[in-house]
Amino acid sequence: MPSITETAVEADPRVPIIRITRDFAATPEQLFRAHTDPALFARWVGPDGTTTRIEHWDATTGGSWRYVTERDGTEHRFHGCFHEVRPDRIVQTFTYAGDPDGVLLSTMWFEDLGGGRTRLRSQSLVDSFEGRDAWLRSGMETGLDDGYTELERMVTDGTL
Amino acid sequence: MPSITETAVEADPRVPIIRITRDFAATPEQLFRAHTDPALFARWVGPDGTTTRIEHWDATTGGSWRYVTERDGTEHRFHGCFHEVRPDRIVQTFTYAGDPDGVLLSTMWFEDLGGGRTRLRSQSLVDSFEGRDAWLRSGMETGLDDGYTELERMVTDGTL
Repeated sequence: MPSITETAVEADPRVPIIRITRDFAATPEQLFRAHTDPALFARWVGPDGTTTRIEHWDATTGGSWRYVTERDGTEHRFHGCFHEVRPDRIVQTFTYAGDPDGVLLSTMWFEDLGGGRTRLRSQSLVDSFEGRDAWLRSGMETGLDDGYTELERMVTDGTL
Repeated sequence: MPSITETAVEADPRVPIIRITRDFAATPEQLFRAHTDPALFARWVGPDGTTTRIEHWDATTGGSWRYVTERDGTEHRFHGCFHEVRPDRIVQTFTYAGDPDGVLLSTMWFEDLGGGRTRLRSQSLVDSFEGRDAWLRSGMETGLDDGYTELERMVTDGTL
């Protein structure tokens, strides 16, 4: 199976979904921790130069989360709830406070590729193609790619 | 404006969304209570002959819920989280335990029509048209119509 070492971002043609795939030299358990431990999550999420302050974090089924990112003096706020948290899949909602009525339903899978490698797949579903395209134009691809690269560094340096 | 006294269920042609509309001789506050107070909610939800047992209920932004319905000796379990709860809008996730990987993102609006009348609008978004059609075939229309008729009775008899 070819390795997906860059972040692959794909807009589904039939439904307003953004699909993201990236392989990591990490175990499913490490990727799960990176997405559920608030101190670890805050270290890698967001584009380079971002500082993340977790305001609330309960990464369990039925829990919720809220954080603020800061970059070049500008703050951005995000919040959502965890619909389901299990070792191979996390389902959560996501709202950017700058677009308070917009809601994204995100599902993430950790697929064990063997040999200490894991494929992270995610889909982000919104209620219109216009809304989906606005997310794609927002720079999410750069933010994700920077974040996942930092996550990889945390695996390499033994933080994860 | 013509009144929508039957439950109108519509499948969106472009996105996997079910849209539902119904007018009530109730205020937005009454409909909000009917959807957030667990004892009231348990009384009207589901098709005729259903008993609902609330196992967990925190109808606040970031909260979650879980309940069991029983009808003719058969139990069905449902759970989800509340992404946002505000007087004019409730956004929540919804899973039927019989299809544990299926997730529906539901948004509900209470629109004041004046004169003690309120239009309830909702949209339920899933990640495929196949999944949406399975929901439509599941008898949700009858269940909703029965439930909303019971909700109306609760307004008339002063319970709400």
